[in-house]
Amino acid sequence: MTIVPKQRALGQVEADTPHSLVVRFDSDRPLKMDAGCAFAPLSVAYQTYGALNAAKSNAILICHALTGDQHVANTHPVTGKPGWWQTMVGPGKPIDTDRYFVIAANVVGGCMGTTGPASTDPATGRAYGLDLPLVTIRDMVRAQAMLLDHLGIETLFSVIGGSMGGMQVLQWAASYPERVFSAMPIAAAAKHSSQNIAFHEVGRQAIMADPEWRNGRYLDEGTNPNKGLAVARMAAHITYLSEKALQRKFGRNYQDRAAPTFSFDADFQIENYLRYQGASFVDRFDANSYLYVTRACDYFDLAGDYGGSLAAAFKGTKTRFCVVSFTSDWLYPTSDSRAIVHALNAAAASVSFVEIQTDRGHDAFLLEVPEFFATTRGFLDAAARARGIAEH
Amino acid sequence: MTIVPKQRALGQVEADTPHSLVVRFDSDRPLKMDAGCAFAPLSVAYQTYGALNAAKSNAILICHALTGDQHVANTHPVTGKPGWWQTMVGPGKPIDTDRYFVIAANVVGGCMGTTGPASTDPATGRAYGLDLPLVTIRDMVRAQAMLLDHLGIETLFSVIGGSMGGMQVLQWAASYPERVFSAMPIAAAAKHSSQNIAFHEVGRQAIMADPEWRNGRYLDEGTNPNKGLAVARMAAHITYLSEKALQRKFGRNYQDRAAPTFSFDADFQIENYLRYQGASFVDRFDANSYLYVTRACDYFDLAGDYGGSLAAAFKGTKTRFCVVSFTSDWLYPTSDSRAIVHALNAAAASVSFVEIQTDRGHDAFLLEVPEFFATTRGFLDAAARARGIAEH
Repeated sequence: MTIVPKQRALGQVEADTPHSLVVRFDSDRPLKMDAGCAFAPLSVAYQTYGALNAAKSNAILICHALTGDQHVANTHPVTGKPGWWQTMVGPGKPIDTDRYFVIAANVVGGCMGTTGPASTDPATGRAYGLDLPLVTIRDMVRAQAMLLDHLGIETLFSVIGGSMGGMQVLQWAASYPERVFSAMPIAAAAKHSSQNIAFHEVGRQAIMADPEWRNGRYLDEGTNPNKGLAVARMAAHITYLSEKALQRKFGRNYQDRAAPTFSFDADFQIENYLRYQGASFVDRFDANSYLYVTRACDYFDLAGDYGGSLAAAFKGTKTRFCVVSFTSDWLYPTSDSRAIVHALNAAAASVSFVEIQTDRGHDAFLLEVPEFFATTRGFLDAAARARGIAEH
Repeated sequence: MTIVPKQRALGQVEADTPHSLVVRFDSDRPLKMDAGCAFAPLSVAYQTYGALNAAKSNAILICHALTGDQHVANTHPVTGKPGWWQTMVGPGKPIDTDRYFVIAANVVGGCMGTTGPASTDPATGRAYGLDLPLVTIRDMVRAQAMLLDHLGIETLFSVIGGSMGGMQVLQWAASYPERVFSAMPIAAAAKHSSQNIAFHEVGRQAIMADPEWRNGRYLDEGTNPNKGLAVARMAAHITYLSEKALQRKFGRNYQDRAAPTFSFDADFQIENYLRYQGASFVDRFDANSYLYVTRACDYFDLAGDYGGSLAAAFKGTKTRFCVVSFTSDWLYPTSDSRAIVHALNAAAASVSFVEIQTDRGHDAFLLEVPEFFATTRGFLDAAARARGIAEH
């Protein structure tokens, strides 16, 4: 027998030995998954910022997007870059860690320390790969609820997230209405559209077409489907930016040259940019994880769990909602947010709706857009007064 | 030395032995290419429909789109399906072959009989692969002009095409204004946008990431980058359809099942559809050809050849234009057509502009959209009267 050395990328090392706090749930507290199983052991890796007050009333859960993670406001252990929401979360920031206790957990199926396909299955000593049951948005939220139980937090002051994070916010409000005082789904949708599924399927096919993917067993076999994963990331990345933003940032500008080379080199800046996005992504993300988190989004259809009525998902809710969309987001356009607002109105919920004017596309939720930051600060301030959370 | 058998797909067989008329231009009549060379020998494969009148005044050139070909109105020799515009072109159809002489040629860089990367280089006996110089839209049009010279046709009654075909139409009007009586660019743009380039680059990277691509030498090595090509096609295909059309046709409907399988099977109809589009495409198209034709589009920037002024490209034109766009086309949206119309107006050209209301996206130019068909018929009728072409 040939021993193939495992060559794990930096990001894959985090799967088993994360630079994060980790709570492990054993078979006495399994995760009940939509796929129909009780899964254990489950590790949940998380970060916290700020301090929980005595009343335990100031906890905010931040849910991350598709390829995000728990490193919201600290230096990322793999890339060395600032946390993905370090502009939004911190002392004196809109999500003020002097006032609120912020929790962020890696999602189930992720690759930054919460159990995912790159994690080692203790039963076999090998990575789960595709043996991990498929994960849904509801599964992710159930695991987060288990984390909160572990932390002794009964009620969240707020649950906030953009994109796939926004789906988790909606699921939280639907699954645990009594545990959510306020909720802010940003640039999200209550269900994945046909076009959304289509783009994700292209990404999955790109990964699976890579012969180094080896039916998901690449970690055992010492191969690496980086090329497929990079193509998947490139395709997805286009959907995160608006056509206008691309035109403004890159247009038809050449990359370090005055004229086309008449070759397949990256003549254009946009090509160079996309190649860089693909190449840098594979250093921090696991290919199978990408399959799992995209699939979780595709399966998301909140109304489907409530007889086809999105309003029914929010029936009787006392949660205060602030729904945010961005004008140039074509991945989860304003119409998706409007559908959520209509359902919340039909459920007589407390909801405000803010459509932010920007040409920066879906990625605007990650960027320092002043009106968006002011909206977040204002919504939380008002909710904090209603909740009786002291000002800093 | 090991002889690797060439396993050419059906589509690749057409590259050297097409089911079409072929004219060959030898080194006494080389193709002057934008890449800076005089290329020979060049084969141009073409189809004709109808009959040229005595005055040679009724010729219409149809320019095909990215992966289209010369088989406009006859059964396709590889797929056995009707020609791609058989609804538009034929006896009594809007482009009436009882009245007009219709010519369609495979573009340079294609794979259906005009010289392209899958064609055999007579100097080596091997496929050109990436040794073929990069091809531009202007090169394609130059080759078409050589074909018209060969056919003894001085002036085209009309030149018509959609998408990349529309780019050729614009290039014809700019390069050979005196040879174009009327012109109909459909669902086109005078330059490729940053987002357009981005999607093409994803497709190229998907092909090049396939280890069977072998730096473009797969025909020699008996390999086949079908997986990469299929992913490229899937990504592109999403851009051909509107979000609304996808939602209407597929929505979140399951494929032959009542519930999700919690696997990576094609649970959703849209996934099944995309996989089919990818799988069927590779039977008729060559991967290197895909690189060439996408690159030709990316390089297209008509104003760039005229000091940055699109109006200058059309200065003094006597050609009658009809510019057509579709409301739900997000690949080459109406704003792109409007920019063409503005330039034509600035050049004091005769131009009508029709924006067709449809939710069918970019692909509408290939579909039987009544208002579009009526527009085409009406524009040609009026132009034919002005040109003195007898009614049938």
